[in-house]
Order: sequence, then C-alpha cells, then structure tokens
Amino acid sequence: MKVLDSINNPQDLKKLKKENLIDLAKEIREEIINTVSKNGGHLASSLGVVDLSIAIHYVFDSPHDKIIWDVGHQSYAHKILTGRKSKFKTIRTHSGLSGFPKRSESEYDAFSVGHSSTSISAALGFAAARDLKNEDYKIVAVIGDGSMTCGLAFEGLQNAGHLKKNMLVILNDNEMFISQKVGAVAGYLAKLLTAGMARKFEEKVMKTVSRFHGFGSPVGKFIKRVKVMLFPGMFFEEMGFTYIGPVQGHNINNLIVILENLKDVKTPVLLHVITKKGKGYAPAEEDPVKFHSVGKFDIKSGRIAKGEAITYTKVFSDTLIELAQSDDKIVAVTAAMPEGTGLDKFSEKFPDRYFDVGIAEGHAVTFAAAMAAGGMHPVCAIYSTFMQRAIDNIIHDVALQNLPVVFAVDRAGLVGEDGGTHHGAFDLSYLNYIPNLVVMSPSDENELRNMLKTALNSNTPCVIRYPKGTGIGAALYKLPCCILQIGKATVLRQGRDICFLAVGNHVETCLKASDLLLERNVNASVVNMRFLKPLDINTLKEMLLKTRKFITVEENALTGGFGETVKAFLCSSGAVVECIGLPDKFIEHGSLRFLREKYGFTPESIVEKALQML
Amino acid sequence: MKVLDSINNPQDLKKLKKENLIDLAKEIREEIINTVSKNGGHLASSLGVVDLSIAIHYVFDSPHDKIIWDVGHQSYAHKILTGRKSKFKTIRTHSGLSGFPKRSESEYDAFSVGHSSTSISAALGFAAARDLKNEDYKIVAVIGDGSMTCGLAFEGLQNAGHLKKNMLVILNDNEMFISQKVGAVAGYLAKLLTAGMARKFEEKVMKTVSRFHGFGSPVGKFIKRVKVMLFPGMFFEEMGFTYIGPVQGHNINNLIVILENLKDVKTPVLLHVITKKGKGYAPAEEDPVKFHSVGKFDIKSGRIAKGEAITYTKVFSDTLIELAQSDDKIVAVTAAMPEGTGLDKFSEKFPDRYFDVGIAEGHAVTFAAAMAAGGMHPVCAIYSTFMQRAIDNIIHDVALQNLPVVFAVDRAGLVGEDGGTHHGAFDLSYLNYIPNLVVMSPSDENELRNMLKTALNSNTPCVIRYPKGTGIGAALYKLPCCILQIGKATVLRQGRDICFLAVGNHVETCLKASDLLLERNVNASVVNMRFLKPLDINTLKEMLLKTRKFITVEENALTGGFGETVKAFLCSSGAVVECIGLPDKFIEHGSLRFLREKYGFTPESIVEKALQML
Repeated sequence: MKVLDSINNPQDLKKLKKENLIDLAKEIREEIINTVSKNGGHLASSLGVVDLSIAIHYVFDSPHDKIIWDVGHQSYAHKILTGRKSKFKTIRTHSGLSGFPKRSESEYDAFSVGHSSTSISAALGFAAARDLKNEDYKIVAVIGDGSMTCGLAFEGLQNAGHLKKNMLVILNDNEMFISQKVGAVAGYLAKLLTAGMARKFEEKVMKTVSRFHGFGSPVGKFIKRVKVMLFPGMFFEEMGFTYIGPVQGHNINNLIVILENLKDVKTPVLLHVITKKGKGYAPAEEDPVKFHSVGKFDIKSGRIAKGEAITYTKVFSDTLIELAQSDDKIVAVTAAMPEGTGLDKFSEKFPDRYFDVGIAEGHAVTFAAAMAAGGMHPVCAIYSTFMQRAIDNIIHDVALQNLPVVFAVDRAGLVGEDGGTHHGAFDLSYLNYIPNLVVMSPSDENELRNMLKTALNSNTPCVIRYPKGTGIGAALYKLPCCILQIGKATVLRQGRDICFLAVGNHVETCLKASDLLLERNVNASVVNMRFLKPLDINTLKEMLLKTRKFITVEENALTGGFGETVKAFLCSSGAVVECIGLPDKFIEHGSLRFLREKYGFTPESIVEKALQML
Repeated sequence: MKVLDSINNPQDLKKLKKENLIDLAKEIREEIINTVSKNGGHLASSLGVVDLSIAIHYVFDSPHDKIIWDVGHQSYAHKILTGRKSKFKTIRTHSGLSGFPKRSESEYDAFSVGHSSTSISAALGFAAARDLKNEDYKIVAVIGDGSMTCGLAFEGLQNAGHLKKNMLVILNDNEMFISQKVGAVAGYLAKLLTAGMARKFEEKVMKTVSRFHGFGSPVGKFIKRVKVMLFPGMFFEEMGFTYIGPVQGHNINNLIVILENLKDVKTPVLLHVITKKGKGYAPAEEDPVKFHSVGKFDIKSGRIAKGEAITYTKVFSDTLIELAQSDDKIVAVTAAMPEGTGLDKFSEKFPDRYFDVGIAEGHAVTFAAAMAAGGMHPVCAIYSTFMQRAIDNIIHDVALQNLPVVFAVDRAGLVGEDGGTHHGAFDLSYLNYIPNLVVMSPSDENELRNMLKTALNSNTPCVIRYPKGTGIGAALYKLPCCILQIGKATVLRQGRDICFLAVGNHVETCLKASDLLLERNVNASVVNMRFLKPLDINTLKEMLLKTRKFITVEENALTGGFGETVKAFLCSSGAVVECIGLPDKFIEHGSLRFLREKYGFTPESIVEKALQML
C-alpha cells in the first residue's frame, strides 16, 4: 500500500510520521510524472516543489491558512494533497482539473493564478483583510526567483515591508534565472547562494533563534540585527522583511522545523529556499527548460512527442534572423521567454542585439521604445496574454511618440490546455483603440514573414498577432520577404451569396467553408483582412456591392474585436453581419482542437451559420 | 538686464560665469511662478529642480546628450533653458507649450513623458542603442523618490544594473514620499537621509575620488568598495549601480562639480540629490501638496483661485465616507493620489481602512482583489489614464475570479491642460471587453452616489467612471443613496424624431440639445445609459420602435467605445447611428471647455449633427 493512498486532505498528511514523508514525496513525483507524460503540463517546476509542498501542508492548516502559489504552474503536488488526488489524471483536459490554482475549483486554492508575481500583493491583501476582521489565519506565498524580477513583486514586497503584516513569503529559488544571468536581482540571489559561510552561520542562527523562542524575543532580535549587519539578505531586509536563508528545499523534515519556527513570527518574513527544477526525474533535472511546459513524453527515454509542422513561432524566429542579417539595427527583446518566443535562436546569432529583461513586460516595451528613439529597430516578442501587462507602455511610450517598435504577439487566440489565464483572447480589443498602431494578423506562414518585413520597414509602431502552434503548412517561400501595403486586405475568392471576412489563421477555415458551400451551389467571397487596424474600408465597400451578407471570423473576444468594428462600420449600410469569435466570458481550458470546435472555429460551423443567413 | 536674457539655449548657459548661475536660478523661478500663477501647472516640483536643471545643462551637452525627465512635470526650467523661453508663457494653453517634455515639441526633449517611472527604462534603451551604434553621448535620467516606488522603475534599475551601461540616474529626493511614509523604499531613503555621518564621509569620498580621477581609477575603486561596505546606498549597489549621495540639490556649483566628476564614469551611477519642493516660493515650500498641480493663484498671498461647484471627486469622497460609516468592511486603496482621488478625507476618518500603496497601480489592484477574497469591500480609486497600468491585474486578478472590487475611475474623459498623456480617453475601450465587469458612468452627482452604493452592494467587480472637475451642480439628495438596477438605462425624454444615447456627464449636454431642438419642432428622446456594460439592449430595442435615428455621446475614444458597441448592436436593424466621441488620435492639451467644443461635446454640435440626420 502506498503512503499516498491514505492522504485525502492535509489533515491526513498531519497524521503521518515524519519518516513516511520521504516516501510520500516519491509517490507524488511518480503520480505527477505519469500524468504529465500523458497530458502534458508544467513538469519541472512542479517536481521541484514536491518536498516544499508537503512541508507547507504539514505545518500550516489549509484552507484556514491561505497558501498562495505564484504563477501556479508548480501547484501539482498541492492539488494532489488537497483532495484532488483522484481527479489529478484529468489535469489540463476539458472539464478536468485546471493546470493552475483556481478558487472556483477548490477551497484550498486561496487565489487564482496563471500570470507571475501576483502572490506577494495577494498575500498582503489577505493579511490586511484578516487583521481588519480580527481573524487569525496564516498566509504563505510561494514565489520563484524568476517572478521576483517583475516590478509587481517589488511593489508587493515594499508595501508589505512597510505595513509589517504577519505573512511568510517563501522565495523558491530554483536557479533557473540565475543560470541565465537575467537582471540584477538574479545576480544578487546568486551572490546569496554562494555565501557559503553565511549559510552555515544561518543554520546556527536558526537553531539559536528557535531555542530562544523566535525573533520576537530580545535575544532573537539581537541575533537578527547582528546577522543583518554581517550577512546577506540585505535587499529583503531593506524592504522590511526578515530574511532567512538560503536553506535546502528538498529536506522535508528540515523544512518542517524551519516552518514551525517561522509560524509564529508576527512580521513579514522571507524564507529563501533552494530547490532543483525537475527534481526526481533525471531528464527534467538535466534539461529543466525543455521540461518546463512540456507535451506528451516517454517516461523511460525522456523523449518528447513532437509535431511535424512548423510553428508560427519558428517562422517568426527564422525570419527575424534572416532580416537581421542585412539590417544591423534590428534588436530583439523578450520578457523571460526566449524559448517560447523563439528568440533563443536569435540570441545565439546576435548576442549583442538580444535583450532578455526578465519577467518585466512593462519595462521591455518602454526599453524598446527608447531603443527606437535611439535609432534601432526593436522587435518585442511577447505572448498576447502577458502583453496585457504592458498596455500603458504601448500607449504612453510607444504609440504617443509614434516610435517604430514591432510587437510580435505570439499565442494570440486560444492556447488550449493552459486555459483562462493564458488564452490570448483580448489583444485585438486592447490594441484596436490605440492611436498610431498598425495591427495585423497573418493567414499563413508566408504572410507572417512578409508582415515582419513590412513592420520593420514601416516606421510606425506595428503589431503582428499570430496563434499558438503550427500554421497551415504553407511551404515557406524561398524568395525574400516582400513588403505589404499597409491597410490593404486581399480578396481570395469572389462570390455573390455571402462574404467571409477572416482574420489570421481563420482565413484557411473560411476557404474550407467556401469549398463546402460550393457543393451546395453557394458562392462565398473570402477576404483575408490582413490588417485589423487600419481597417480596409475600401475593400469592405467593394464587397458590399456584391452581397449584403457577411460573416466575420476572429479568434478574439467578440467585444471590442474585429467583428464589432466591421458591424459598426457597416451599420446603416443594410448589411447583415454575423460574427464568430469568443463570447464575453473567460474561456475554459481544453485542447485547442476541442475549444475551436466548441466556439465555432470550424468550416462546418461557418457553413451552418452561412446557411442560416441565406 | 537679466541673466536670463542672454540664455537662448544650453550653449549660452555654458558661457556664463558660475557666480551668475545663482541669479539665473532666481530669475527662472520668477518666470515659473509668474507663468504658473496665470496658467496653472506643476509648480512645486518644477521649482524644486531649477538648480539641478541648470547644473545638468551646464555640465552635459543637450541635445547630443540625452536628458530624460521622469513624469516630466518638473521640466519647466529645462524648457526655459532649451530655446523655449519666449514661448514659456503659453505653457499648458492650446497650441502652446506642453506641460511635459515632448519629442515633437523640441529636440531637447529626448523622451516624451507624463506617467511616472519610465525614465530608467528609457535611459537604458538609449544606452543600448548608443552602444550598438558606437555613438558616444551621455544619458541622464532624473527621477523622483515617488517614482522610485513603482515596479517599472525597479524593472529598469535591475536591468540597467545587469547590463552595466554607461548612464546616470539622478534620484531627485524631495522628501515628499518620505514624509508620507509610503512603502519600504521611502523608509529606506529616509534612512539614507538621516545617515549624517555617511553624508559627511560621502563628501570626503567625492573629493578624494575627484582627485584620483574618478571611480575608474584603482584608488577610486578601492574607495568605492570601502564606502559600499560601510555606508548606505546598498539597495542601489545591490542593483548594480554605484551609489553616490545624498548630496544637497540647491547648491548649483557643488552640483556642477559632482556632475563633472561623474560624467566620465562608464558604468551605471545613481546620484541621490536632496531638493525641496516649491523651493524659492514660500507658500509652495510650506504646502507643496497644494502647489503640486495648481490652478491660477495670487503670487503675493499664495491664495489659489477655486471653483464653487462641487467636484465629482468630492462627491465620491463624501459618499464613500458616508457608506463606510455603516459598513466596516469598506476599505479604500490609492496609488499615491490621496488628494487627487479625494481619499485623503477617508484616510483621516478611517486610517486603518485606508491604504496608499505608492505609485503602484498594478499592486493596488491585485492587493484589492485579495482583500475582496478575504471578505472586505475594497474601493480602488485611480485616474483613468493611470488605470492603464493595471489592466492585466483587473483582468487576471479581479475579473477572472469575479471578485467584488469597486473601481472609482476619476478623470475619465478629457482632462484639459495636462494633455495627451493624461486624458482618460480609453477606459471604456479597455474595460468593455473584460468579462464579468460592470461598467457605469453617472450623469450627475446624485447618480454617482447611487452608483457607489450599487457597486458596493453588487458582489461583482464594478467600475464607476466619472470626469474631472465639477458636475452639473445637481443638489445632493439628503436621502440615503439608493441601489440602481444593474444594466438598466433610464429614458429621460421621449421623442419620435431622433434618440440621444448619452454616457455620464453628456446626458446633461443631450438634454440641452433636445431643448434647443424643441424650438425647431424636433422631438428628441434622451436616454441616460448609466451602464456601458452590460448594455441595456431592451431599452435600445424599445427606442428603436420610436425612431431609426440615433446619436451616441461619450467622452471616450470612439474606437472600441460605447458608440461602436451601439452601432454593432444596431447593425442590420435599419437604424442610422452617428457617434460623438474622441477621434482615433492622441488628443492635444488645452482647456477643458475648448477641447469639449472642438470635439463636439456641446448642445450646439449635437443639434447640428441631429439636423443633418433629419
């Protein structure tokens, strides 16, 4: 019988003897590896905090105490320990468990997450509410070293340090960022890690402090002051936190002792824990980047199942390198996503022209704006959902000065299994109203190449939004990229019965729909809009001469998106316009294929809608 | 003859003898005080950096060297010194100088600003561009201590410290934030200030370093290391900057010596300068908050001209206090704008339930979300233009979890003299597509009261957007606030000829237009929409039974705003819809009255549009 069999909630965990916890960790790791090998998911980070998760739930009393996971991709062990063991196999599948903590899924998930660096702000919010209501629960935020590079974490830290609330922040330092030497905070943490002397001293301090009943006692206070003067952690101490660490993050029993000691400290404490990403699964330990967000894989060999078609990300990456070879003003900026955005390849070719600024989308955009003002041609590659964090920088620093920054907005539209926090559902809506911007979306791989060339040539701020995953497989032209006319749509098919106005990857869907309609003697026009802004009103007027029936298709929220823009333009024209797009709600997780079917992004749904209109 | 008469650009300044600079500073202060007493503007902060501005332009070589003013409200002396002396009297008037640095206004304005904390990111962007292009200019960013509390500044600092670029950041510490004890950074800076011993030591270090030709020399390096070990500035040193300071910011000649010394340091340096807000004008020195952003005033007495009508801000402030008296779960959050948002009064009544988090809009929203999750009723009061910085937090932390946070969005619509960076032109567009949000806008003061009550009672996230300045003067009901039906518009007048659909303050404008039309025997309906989201489609359908002609009026960008939403809804209905709102460009500065006339927000323009349609 497995130890895990006896665990249905954190109360069961507390009944275990400490010597069984190591077996439990092993079993949880097996469960995670097995499930992720089938469902895909965030493997390396979840494996890294299994021991920490056990220790936290052993010491703290969730859901009474609030445990807040930053980003939340490391929460698999937490889910298994908090009543979701039997459903764990459904993780990231439609109607199954979410890949992230979610308030609506479990009372043990104190705060929903997905984007990084919210945990300290959230912990402080709970602390403020608790104290005003005279409640007495504990609050623990677990945040990675990468998330600590984001300004939001800094804002939370400094406000928490100032308000002096009772809360524990666990800095889960898995050396990911340090190895990449991104940002001064990473360098700073690295320095802390190498302070071996300090670490040993720290252990003694911990013992002494626990003997003298914590930092609240006079002796504890004195020791703390001496420690601060001589040893690392100054950054956090300056922010108003008591810094403890670094401590080893895979020794469960040691972690339990430390957490027990810290449980009754009444002021903000930062515990610096060192963990290893992928811990317990050799292939993930060796290449945690590859196993960060992973698809299906073979457990034995560690081989990851790969699609064959070329992704939009790769087309972007290859084309940018190609263009950068003949234009030495091209520079590339990523906010801690070199692999995800494909800029890792660019960084190898042009290390001096590549900037990974850490999880700092706002800074990435303002930094790029100034590079443009300084005469460079910056390309900012950011996922649609994370770009939400830099909207003011786009408005205030790029668009207002009309600076030629190119935004490569990857993962625009549905993203599948990562769900509501990660769908790129809003970018057309949050970009459309910004003056001076050009917004485009390629219908296939070749067009992405041409759009990148066009944007870099335009001398205005440009956005190119393209979806997650593979394109339609159009063979890439061997010819050089060509420059498109800004604001010009292309009419791919002329039909008198109905007109499809399509954005990006759904041009292909509409072409297929028009094929199906032909079999029913219905002639549909298909327009590849190419540019969402400026809208090609001339082509719209031209199409209006042929038909009064329109269907728009976009993988974006309908509200404020392309379809509404068309409807608004065609209002009073006598046209009837139906829109296919995402409804006004947060879209759940599930496979891309499933979600696209559910929300009507198939040739069949378009045909059905067209037939209703005719 | 004045010294200032001989200064037309920074080159002229360099010809002056150092002993004349003090007179120059006095003259510049007089010029600023005179002009601002007539035009209004940011007086205290601009007076505070007159000496620093002179020193910077004396030492550095603008526009070749890039000087970047954070926020930019302190740039008046800079403008006077850089070829805009004769136009200075036009500042903040339509077609006159902008109140902020603006690239399109002058080559001396390296980067346009208005929002805080962009300067370090921008300086780093210029530095990266310069180095890649093998250019050799210097870069100076001047940032206030308040701006340093924002996560964007932290992101910039840590990236700059990591990249080790040649750039100088001048921390202009005017003790504003420190006096208010907002955030750990403020506390930290206060600690630096009180380190008197360190300051004296610093001066000696400065002299020694200058004797040994700067920090690059071996002796300089050694001294620096000793200094860092023993003295303050660790936070910035940890970020990778060389910290110098604090130094007195009103001794021009001393500043010049220091800047000359730092000019040739090749790595990032942070110079901590202490200035006094309002310096040189006694009333502003005594009450820098009152003279931060000020209207017309009498120079002699320091008396500020005041309007008589009650502002929306005051109505919000009074009502919140009233409601908080009977609901102890109400808490209020501001991002460093207690006076501007009216929360200063709340803070006096309920100090424990009031949170000023510093210039940290993102954190403010996430913090509020968690307070809501913890059972409180948080109200976040943020200006429309600054809320642009927290859109992801609204989406990801509030709306996705459907947490009942109330957003009081002040300065929605045109703001007048502060211009393009400050108009609240986009909030309806950037909020409309967010699922779960309720968005409302009051037509008068009473309705603001009712909407606040409604929002706090709704158990969903709610936004109330209201304009800058005074309302229509509706006497405030003495009755308790009442709860409105969410999503229900009210029809104020019934007419068969045309229908006005109005948002917020322009309900009144439409009522006046309908009066004028009556004189011409035209009967107009007037609908107070109240709720932008959810849209009251039933009322729209009802109105459609009476007329096919509609005019929408909103003080927001037309793109993605209310008018387009109505057009999209009425598309194919046979209705003709015309929209009054802001065009797709950044709106210039000028008086509110002038801008409202120019962009058609008057009864007369509405009448004209109506007559064209009839």
